[in-house]
Amino acid sequence: KPSFIGMASQSGSFITQMFSYLNQRFGKSFSTGFSLGNEADIDLVDCIEYLGACPNTRVIALYIESIRRGQRFIEIARNVSKHKPIIAFYVGGSETGKRACLSHTGSLAGPDRLYDGVFRQSGIIRAQSIEEMFDFCYALGSSPLPKGNRVIIQTHSGGPGAAAADACGRSGLELPALSPETLEKIAPYVPHTASVNNPVDLTFTKNPLDFFHRIPEILLEEKASDGMLIYFLASERMVRQALTGMGVPEDAVLDQAAQIVGAQCQSVASLMETFKKPILGFSFMTRDNHFVAGLQDRGIPVLPSPERAARAFGAMVRYTKLREKILQSEKESAGHFSAE
Amino acid sequence: KPSFIGMASQSGSFITQMFSYLNQRFGKSFSTGFSLGNEADIDLVDCIEYLGACPNTRVIALYIESIRRGQRFIEIARNVSKHKPIIAFYVGGSETGKRACLSHTGSLAGPDRLYDGVFRQSGIIRAQSIEEMFDFCYALGSSPLPKGNRVIIQTHSGGPGAAAADACGRSGLELPALSPETLEKIAPYVPHTASVNNPVDLTFTKNPLDFFHRIPEILLEEKASDGMLIYFLASERMVRQALTGMGVPEDAVLDQAAQIVGAQCQSVASLMETFKKPILGFSFMTRDNHFVAGLQDRGIPVLPSPERAARAFGAMVRYTKLREKILQSEKESAGHFSAE
Repeated sequence: KPSFIGMASQSGSFITQMFSYLNQRFGKSFSTGFSLGNEADIDLVDCIEYLGACPNTRVIALYIESIRRGQRFIEIARNVSKHKPIIAFYVGGSETGKRACLSHTGSLAGPDRLYDGVFRQSGIIRAQSIEEMFDFCYALGSSPLPKGNRVIIQTHSGGPGAAAADACGRSGLELPALSPETLEKIAPYVPHTASVNNPVDLTFTKNPLDFFHRIPEILLEEKASDGMLIYFLASERMVRQALTGMGVPEDAVLDQAAQIVGAQCQSVASLMETFKKPILGFSFMTRDNHFVAGLQDRGIPVLPSPERAARAFGAMVRYTKLREKILQSEKESAGHFSAE
Repeated sequence: KPSFIGMASQSGSFITQMFSYLNQRFGKSFSTGFSLGNEADIDLVDCIEYLGACPNTRVIALYIESIRRGQRFIEIARNVSKHKPIIAFYVGGSETGKRACLSHTGSLAGPDRLYDGVFRQSGIIRAQSIEEMFDFCYALGSSPLPKGNRVIIQTHSGGPGAAAADACGRSGLELPALSPETLEKIAPYVPHTASVNNPVDLTFTKNPLDFFHRIPEILLEEKASDGMLIYFLASERMVRQALTGMGVPEDAVLDQAAQIVGAQCQSVASLMETFKKPILGFSFMTRDNHFVAGLQDRGIPVLPSPERAARAFGAMVRYTKLREKILQSEKESAGHFSAE
């Protein structure tokens, strides 16, 4: 079934081979996919124009070996990126990349720094790999935009929390301390082993359901933060064991467990809806796990590692800023114009 | 079942949660896993010593928030890394990482650059994430060491080839041109659409089986290269369709297809054995695909993207060089000693 990523690619592989990639990792697909080859027919500019107007496309992915109509590319992309994020993976900035592109589509790629400039002017976020491009698309297509770069990390596992914090720092994100109000509100829900620094490392929760509702709710109420990263290590088996322990008959356990998992996932999704702050999940588990699939299918992006989640959040912040800058400069030049 | 990665971790999560991670991605597991917590009992140095001597452990993984017995750590690690690769993921070099570590294990981490120096002196390869740490461990534990940094890329898909080439360049690898002898040998096996630059982009093969045997064999014979990256986009369904087309009865197709897939995978594995050059595979498909699982289970590491494969190859080259340097400096100081 179609999804919200619209892609234009100078390699057919990155369309055809990515249906199962997106589906297996994120339960997602393309809204539209263009394979351009060597652009004998239509080019990147045409596709950006089309995808910008396409109602199913919430975010645009570009695989680029070279850009031909440079000036027009910037004009159109700049216009589209004001209302729809564009993520580009550009190969060809290195000497080896350049040679590879020449033998692939016959296009002579240009230096990295030149392309960085083109992307910045166009409001385009650059990704360093196909993997990263789709991570960024997934996050930006799922979440509301963050108002700033302040993130709270919720975890019950120290190492993944520390790895996420470190990666946040390297991605230009800040981890604000919780305010006294938040500390007071959260106290009844956390065990004495927990750390209420940021990362908020719960170690465990008194009531497992708090992890999916009351605790992230309090953390989203925190004014000092613009969004959250949450580490999900949730086991459906434990839910089933708890139900069995409560005397639920064997043949009802599977059904009830699925309902509980679904309700928990829905709870996180509704918090993102309520607070309009992005929540990015991360987990080393795959979609085989029902919590991961349940969250993803309800609109919470869950990425496969703390670093990838942190970098995706970083991309959301960069897009927000770039977009504001473009809007601001247009406002100024419009003001300038009317003053003349 | 136990595998060849021995791990010591200052976070229990990176042991307990990684069994399914390693198994789902690579069909691998740990040989031994130590969770150290805040090192009240045993520390990193003890573990490196143990894992260095452990016969099942071919490669050592470390998750580090801080190192306490610094001098001793360098001594022991330097000694072990001469015969067994050590990969470390260090969190705590950034300001946010430092704070997260302090609240997790109570250890105060040191600056990045200091740790870079410690790792270099110890012959340890640093990874930038848990994902990368296991990628590096997987490649280094599976393959013979490369003699140098010259890589040939074999692909039948332009975009993944170009992405791999670009990532190779950024990881300090070189892509040598094929020699006239190799070009002559390979000519009968490639279609006219192919590019015999490096990446060798076959576009398709006249006989699909050549992709798994004769072509990589010729490329491994090439003296200008120290190893290969191969893009695997192989579909068991196509094998089944071909068999059906050949009139093989329905109920025999599955079995015969499995045998063919197995034989192809074995062919690649035996080439690595014969030539003692590393072959790193990459594919956007997961272990659900029988070619991916078949290659992995026969000792060919297959990583989930071109960039991750290129970086893992880069790590193998760095390890080889670092190891030679340590051996060389010991030889020199031994010579110096005997001359006195």
